[in-house]
Amino acid sequence: MPVSKKMAAAIANSSWIRRMFEEGSRLAKLHGVDRVYDFSIGNPNVEPPPEFKRALEEVVRETKPGVHGYMSNEGYYETRAAVAAYLSRDQGVELTASHVVMTCGAGGALNVIFKTILDPGEEVITPRPYFPEYYAYVDNHGGVLKLVASSADFDLDLEAIDEAVNPRTRAVLINTPNNPTGRVYSRDKLEALGELLARRSENFGRPIFLVSDEPYRRIVFDGMRVPPVMQTYTYTLFASSYSKELSLAGERIGYVAANPAIPDIGLLMDGLVIANRILGFVNAPALMQRVVARLQGVGVDVSLYQRNRDVLCRGLEEAGYQLFRPQGAFYLFPRSPIEDDVAFCREMLEHLVLVVPGSGFGLSGYFRMAFCVPPEVVDGALPIFHEVGAKYFGSRSA
Amino acid sequence: MPVSKKMAAAIANSSWIRRMFEEGSRLAKLHGVDRVYDFSIGNPNVEPPPEFKRALEEVVRETKPGVHGYMSNEGYYETRAAVAAYLSRDQGVELTASHVVMTCGAGGALNVIFKTILDPGEEVITPRPYFPEYYAYVDNHGGVLKLVASSADFDLDLEAIDEAVNPRTRAVLINTPNNPTGRVYSRDKLEALGELLARRSENFGRPIFLVSDEPYRRIVFDGMRVPPVMQTYTYTLFASSYSKELSLAGERIGYVAANPAIPDIGLLMDGLVIANRILGFVNAPALMQRVVARLQGVGVDVSLYQRNRDVLCRGLEEAGYQLFRPQGAFYLFPRSPIEDDVAFCREMLEHLVLVVPGSGFGLSGYFRMAFCVPPEVVDGALPIFHEVGAKYFGSRSA
Repeated sequence: MPVSKKMAAAIANSSWIRRMFEEGSRLAKLHGVDRVYDFSIGNPNVEPPPEFKRALEEVVRETKPGVHGYMSNEGYYETRAAVAAYLSRDQGVELTASHVVMTCGAGGALNVIFKTILDPGEEVITPRPYFPEYYAYVDNHGGVLKLVASSADFDLDLEAIDEAVNPRTRAVLINTPNNPTGRVYSRDKLEALGELLARRSENFGRPIFLVSDEPYRRIVFDGMRVPPVMQTYTYTLFASSYSKELSLAGERIGYVAANPAIPDIGLLMDGLVIANRILGFVNAPALMQRVVARLQGVGVDVSLYQRNRDVLCRGLEEAGYQLFRPQGAFYLFPRSPIEDDVAFCREMLEHLVLVVPGSGFGLSGYFRMAFCVPPEVVDGALPIFHEVGAKYFGSRSA
Repeated sequence: MPVSKKMAAAIANSSWIRRMFEEGSRLAKLHGVDRVYDFSIGNPNVEPPPEFKRALEEVVRETKPGVHGYMSNEGYYETRAAVAAYLSRDQGVELTASHVVMTCGAGGALNVIFKTILDPGEEVITPRPYFPEYYAYVDNHGGVLKLVASSADFDLDLEAIDEAVNPRTRAVLINTPNNPTGRVYSRDKLEALGELLARRSENFGRPIFLVSDEPYRRIVFDGMRVPPVMQTYTYTLFASSYSKELSLAGERIGYVAANPAIPDIGLLMDGLVIANRILGFVNAPALMQRVVARLQGVGVDVSLYQRNRDVLCRGLEEAGYQLFRPQGAFYLFPRSPIEDDVAFCREMLEHLVLVVPGSGFGLSGYFRMAFCVPPEVVDGALPIFHEVGAKYFGSRSA
């Protein structure tokens, strides 16, 4: 066998998102791309803002020697300083360039974090449903991902977290706005989580990190604002990227920022920089580092996502589906009309609608829809959801 | 402690290359950058070729929707097809796009390979002196790097490799042209290595991979050509990048290619694609994928490297240093005039010349010079090497 035993298992269990995405490509070829309603993958469909194009052209025109070469592994000073200045305003906590390491996206940032903090067998707690890549990001570095329940409306269940924490717990990992639920954790909830972690860290005589994965931070609806997590707990590591807020997912540009209040932070930052290097990232892509340095605070137009969310939630609710209205990100995680979410997704597939079983996110009985799609995909799919829903809910006046 | 035990050790033992690089920055600030002769780091100083600039501008002008978004994790079909066509000519082996995965540089490619093929405790054999990041690239994925001797002139020592191979051996890792020695392995040697690996694989009933790391493939001197490794062994994985051949080290663009003759290659490619995704690379940077697709077969002007190699080797030999003349890459690995290479490098540092102890590459009694530097750095440093050399070798007529 040309792959390891572990990889063979990973291939056999390859992600539901990926399988649906591939099924979608197959169906699109068979039936035509316009007849397939593909909600399987979170690839932003809103184009980068006009400021991006201008910044990219500027950066390409500059021809200082060495601009495509290695820089320090943590990234350009100018870029890190720009990120730190933005985050200082956003988080209300004073950061400098030395608290930021530029990475290959938030996926790179999370791998760098876990490589830095985890010893073998240590645990990372995350609420379910959860972004399935988290399993690998923790396992890659010898850690164990431990899932805990969320509340019924996908809020943090602090009792469940408190119960799961033990001396092997190295971190709690949260994602806000959340993939797959669209939940944004409130300031009160984050503060209560911070108190819990501070208390348990003291019990154990060793800090538990809070790792907050926030690539959807600027994709929020109805004027929502994501609370500044760094104000709620000392040992906070913040991972983010420009994949969604500037629609640059393929360019692999993101960062880790650490709460400056963390004791012995110099050692932590040294660790993050070394992890970035030895995992093979070496540094975040040079050209995009120079581009995003100029675009701090710039974001994509979220009105399409808001429109899709509104139309989709209203349409599905009218059809009888139970759902939590996403406060941010571009995912919706409705209850499946039947308990067997895989069967439901297969049924939708027969109607050329691609949605992903909640089982793939650690919570069966639900399904995920990524609504970063053209409005006509939403509009075209709703009647099908009505039709299938009618079978299970009975017919409705809507 | 805010980092894992393992990371704390890695920080304490942080690489010699890195320490010298930082010492160089400190000295440059203190004495002025023109007075410091820095041979510590392999960051190409030759600018990308003019074709690169044109291709980059073209790609930036194109504004198809989604060009900065995710593509399939293995990379754009067009890019992989272009790489496959180039490699097919170069290796004399018929590759298609399906045999190529685009990665974040060769460092990313090697991590992806080892993540795919290694089960815990499996061994990867590499000859010393070796590129020290290899230790981490193997260790990251639960493997063990096993060092074997090279011949006196840094050629492969097949007996040493044969002796080191055992049932836990999953791969032999070579780097040609070699960092730090500049050695290019001959076709005869590679064929003999291929025979050895085929024989031992058969003994054990399980294939041993040959992983060939070739980012310096096009940086060769005196009309040398790097032999096509895929012709010499079936289970060959080829890692490379555009970091050196197009001077794009900071842009993180490279690839893995697999020998199409590998049995069950579909499973292997699936594994490589999943590894690329779950390590957090997700995909190689989109924009640079589109750029390099247009630049297959284009390379930087190596005449500066050749000039530096010629002047440096002649000058050091005249001063009494023993060395192997590099056939490729931009590194020189001379014998230290005294057995204690660290002491010698410290002594050179007092003269503001930065070279890295061979101990950092697993072979004490030598030192490494990266000659990807302006010619005046070579010219300015040679009198100092003469002066220090005279102390140990006696004065010379040169």
